[in-house]
Amino acid sequence: MTLELIERLFLPVLASPQLEARHDGAIVQLGNLQLAFTTDSYVVRPIEFPGGSIGELAVYGTVNDLAMCGAKPLFLSVGFILEEGLPLEVLKRVAHAIQRAARQAGVTVVTGDTKVVERGKGDQVFLNTSGIGVVELETPPAPARVSPGDAVIVSGDLGRHGVAILAAREGLELEGAIETDAAPLWEPVAALLRAGIEVHCLRDLTRGGLASALNEIARAARVGIEVDESAIVVSEPVAAVCEMLGLDPLYVANEGRFVAFVPWRDAERAVAALRQVPVSSGAVLAGRVLESPAGVVVLRSAYGSRRVLDLLSGEQLPRIC
Amino acid sequence: MTLELIERLFLPVLASPQLEARHDGAIVQLGNLQLAFTTDSYVVRPIEFPGGSIGELAVYGTVNDLAMCGAKPLFLSVGFILEEGLPLEVLKRVAHAIQRAARQAGVTVVTGDTKVVERGKGDQVFLNTSGIGVVELETPPAPARVSPGDAVIVSGDLGRHGVAILAAREGLELEGAIETDAAPLWEPVAALLRAGIEVHCLRDLTRGGLASALNEIARAARVGIEVDESAIVVSEPVAAVCEMLGLDPLYVANEGRFVAFVPWRDAERAVAALRQVPVSSGAVLAGRVLESPAGVVVLRSAYGSRRVLDLLSGEQLPRIC
Repeated sequence: MTLELIERLFLPVLASPQLEARHDGAIVQLGNLQLAFTTDSYVVRPIEFPGGSIGELAVYGTVNDLAMCGAKPLFLSVGFILEEGLPLEVLKRVAHAIQRAARQAGVTVVTGDTKVVERGKGDQVFLNTSGIGVVELETPPAPARVSPGDAVIVSGDLGRHGVAILAAREGLELEGAIETDAAPLWEPVAALLRAGIEVHCLRDLTRGGLASALNEIARAARVGIEVDESAIVVSEPVAAVCEMLGLDPLYVANEGRFVAFVPWRDAERAVAALRQVPVSSGAVLAGRVLESPAGVVVLRSAYGSRRVLDLLSGEQLPRIC
Repeated sequence: MTLELIERLFLPVLASPQLEARHDGAIVQLGNLQLAFTTDSYVVRPIEFPGGSIGELAVYGTVNDLAMCGAKPLFLSVGFILEEGLPLEVLKRVAHAIQRAARQAGVTVVTGDTKVVERGKGDQVFLNTSGIGVVELETPPAPARVSPGDAVIVSGDLGRHGVAILAAREGLELEGAIETDAAPLWEPVAALLRAGIEVHCLRDLTRGGLASALNEIARAARVGIEVDESAIVVSEPVAAVCEMLGLDPLYVANEGRFVAFVPWRDAERAVAALRQVPVSSGAVLAGRVLESPAGVVVLRSAYGSRRVLDLLSGEQLPRIC
């Protein structure tokens, strides 16, 4: 059962203009307010890993989807599906992680739900969070606004979340633990907006990493995207683990990184604004949007050679979030 | 692991005024709008049963929580957690059920998410839906507004959802299938509001049935509640199954029934307004709110004897929704 199949199944059945926008969240008009609304379920394994747990992930993942809509995250719901026999200590740690992360992200958990399933019918804890934010821009960022000439800005080094999960899962002994990069991303987005940057599109680099995010946007906007391999930062230990396991860090999930599309004239100011914020202090100008080939993402190596970054059909790492 | 334990764990950790209101959803102020926001996960087994499926339940359950806040339901998110190996045909039926139910309830599914877990790490399909509605009343209905002298109105016959699930689960052969009562409840609530009834509190009679809902409200409002056994309707086949299985229909879950607390002077008009709407055509004046004993619900039999309807500590029927 592939995601593609599911999307072929769900999108036609549950058709709504917001779902068809294929954005990280929906923008809906309510009175004179533009709300962003998004949902995600979290099934990550293990539920605790270097630098975080399913609790932080469930908060940051959802507030980041709001931030990627250009919306300030405000309210969160949390739904727990618990497997019978889960130690209360674990549950308590997850609840505390949710609380800390919500405070960090400036959101309030206003409503919740708990269900318990029999042993063997779940897997410790599944979480769902849904979030509401407010969009203050007249024209929120969206894939359709990406146009030839836009600069592609990547907010920092890649691959830490996926590698942290994988190392925890496989019991790898690493020199110097690699921790998840999970973090809330509204602050850097707000910095771009405050700097008056015309933000065309934002996308966090979760499942499928940078390569998948760029492919989705190239397809949605019917543009080509070219990125410079030399601009992209992957830390030494992450690169080492990826090489050992045969993973391409461009496809590995992050939980505190995003890509921003801005007009070329704003690129430098955008990078400077992002670098003022700790979570995006490693922001780089990484590429540009081209007219063609539409829907294709190309990686240009330091030596000038080019290779296509395909959209992988399966998931490289299941249950990464 | 009891719900009580979970609530003792979660409420202090995730403290927010909205969570502490212990309502079916949260009311939040945004600009000049009062929004209702709610979430529920659905783990019902079996996922298809007489009269419906997990799909209808996930829509109606959440829109009804909004309606119980006095909010017109508008937008819905849907999160799927799928167990690998689930037949696509089943998934398609669930997706179609969601679509039909959303149309029936007048809401739009605007955002969604899908996760897949390995075989044996889930149980076919879990759903989460979160919903947003708008409250147009200045003072929305809430448990704290229930006061001595209020009339207790029950919107129809009890126990059909729980018995339908149980019969499907146990493979009971019943004469004349008992179908779930799952239905959207905004229409009858809107009828009360249109009639100018001062609605103090609304609560749908889901997990734990009428008895649990009344106990929760009696505790939250620190009042006594007395209901007349003779006023409460349980259909013949539901009563028969309950007797056979040793269940008390007052504790059995419904998915299309609610209780309304209104000032005594409005009681007759409220019942009349509800009876105009098909889903609440069986509405009855079933009891009244007393000053004391605070937190206690009493059932008065046709012969005048009284018995306390306790809050059961465990769940009578697990995975009913």
